[in-house]
Amino acid sequence: ALRDAVVELLAPQQGPFRGQHIVITAGPTREPIDPVRYLSNHSSGKMGYALAAQARRLGARVTLVSGPTQLAAPEGVQRVDVESAEEMLEAVQAAVTDADVFIACAAVADYRLATVAEQKIKKSADRTQLELVRNPDILATVATSDNAPLCIGFAAETQEVAHYAEDKLKRKKLAMIAANDVSDSSIGFNSDANAMTLFWHDAQGQLQQKDLPRAAKSHIAEAILRQLAQLQSHTRAS
Amino acid sequence: ALRDAVVELLAPQQGPFRGQHIVITAGPTREPIDPVRYLSNHSSGKMGYALAAQARRLGARVTLVSGPTQLAAPEGVQRVDVESAEEMLEAVQAAVTDADVFIACAAVADYRLATVAEQKIKKSADRTQLELVRNPDILATVATSDNAPLCIGFAAETQEVAHYAEDKLKRKKLAMIAANDVSDSSIGFNSDANAMTLFWHDAQGQLQQKDLPRAAKSHIAEAILRQLAQLQSHTRAS
Repeated sequence: ALRDAVVELLAPQQGPFRGQHIVITAGPTREPIDPVRYLSNHSSGKMGYALAAQARRLGARVTLVSGPTQLAAPEGVQRVDVESAEEMLEAVQAAVTDADVFIACAAVADYRLATVAEQKIKKSADRTQLELVRNPDILATVATSDNAPLCIGFAAETQEVAHYAEDKLKRKKLAMIAANDVSDSSIGFNSDANAMTLFWHDAQGQLQQKDLPRAAKSHIAEAILRQLAQLQSHTRAS
Repeated sequence: ALRDAVVELLAPQQGPFRGQHIVITAGPTREPIDPVRYLSNHSSGKMGYALAAQARRLGARVTLVSGPTQLAAPEGVQRVDVESAEEMLEAVQAAVTDADVFIACAAVADYRLATVAEQKIKKSADRTQLELVRNPDILATVATSDNAPLCIGFAAETQEVAHYAEDKLKRKKLAMIAANDVSDSSIGFNSDANAMTLFWHDAQGQLQQKDLPRAAKSHIAEAILRQLAQLQSHTRAS
């Protein structure tokens, strides 16, 4: 509480998100198989960390719930470190109680192990299976909760990007989807640059989209947040 | 070839391994599931990198075949970067053709995916399985090949360390096994310190063991290599 108060005092005194609390997830999750092995993905966390830095710069109090990455927390941002999807959900639910915006940028593992072995599993058979169960959908859990903040999702697809993004926008009742095509290796996961398309519904329920051409992730992050601020002002005006 | 010649020229002119080529594997492997997901483990690569640095210091020409780590290659060591176990085997087989010693320190994934998806797998079912097949045993492949170098293996177990180590020593026809207990979190995977027990057979076929008490990984690495040099001199003498 003291730390929150200090962070609040140090917050920028202007910017479109002044007085708002924005919660952002970033990085991969790691789903343990046994004490030494895990399932994960190639997310570097760079996009989520760029969003946290820009949200802070634009006036917000920022909580960054981060899976394992090699990145330093942006200045003035409160970081909460987690490993698995279940740990991330728990940390997010604690953080969003007073949040105005939730941005789900982490590459959360869709599945975790049905059972986690307490001892290192000995190799034996030539073939084996890992039994997986679905992880909680953190974004959908937050977006469909009472007093949900305004929610933004990311779609990292290798095909039919627009189709999946629109489906995700409707199904999860999100304010905005930022979609990119990770099959282009010059952008995305480990790159410092990105190119995205934003999708949202206007006041008449019409799907709108805006292309953000290839740029540094810090620029893409700012463009996403500026579009979000515009959505917020329209919502307030209507 | 030019690079090898330069490295050779820069090699220390003394030490027990002068004139020898030592090949060392380090770090985890990553087994791809699809373009974004993978199976891996918590190996930091620190022990293998420490062995490479010390082997170099003790006079050897060193090839370090490394899975993905955050570490810089020790000076004077030739590093070959790989991701999967199959890539590691290929790089090791290319490197050991003229090797005197092979030290298998990497935490190689025991299994890989039976099939790797070319596109990101869509989540759908509540439960699913990953079908796994055994990876090649890099150490056994090298140890049982014609003109095999002297081979050293590592055993990272969470229980019955000595039992598994001795079994591995016999089954894979190794010169030495270095065993540690990764269930003690103050040593091992991400730590800078380690404690190990070395196992080998003396000229009479009797199992010998030597405890290396908790110390910096650089010290443990040197102790392992000194014991190896002693084994080599006994072998030459007999």
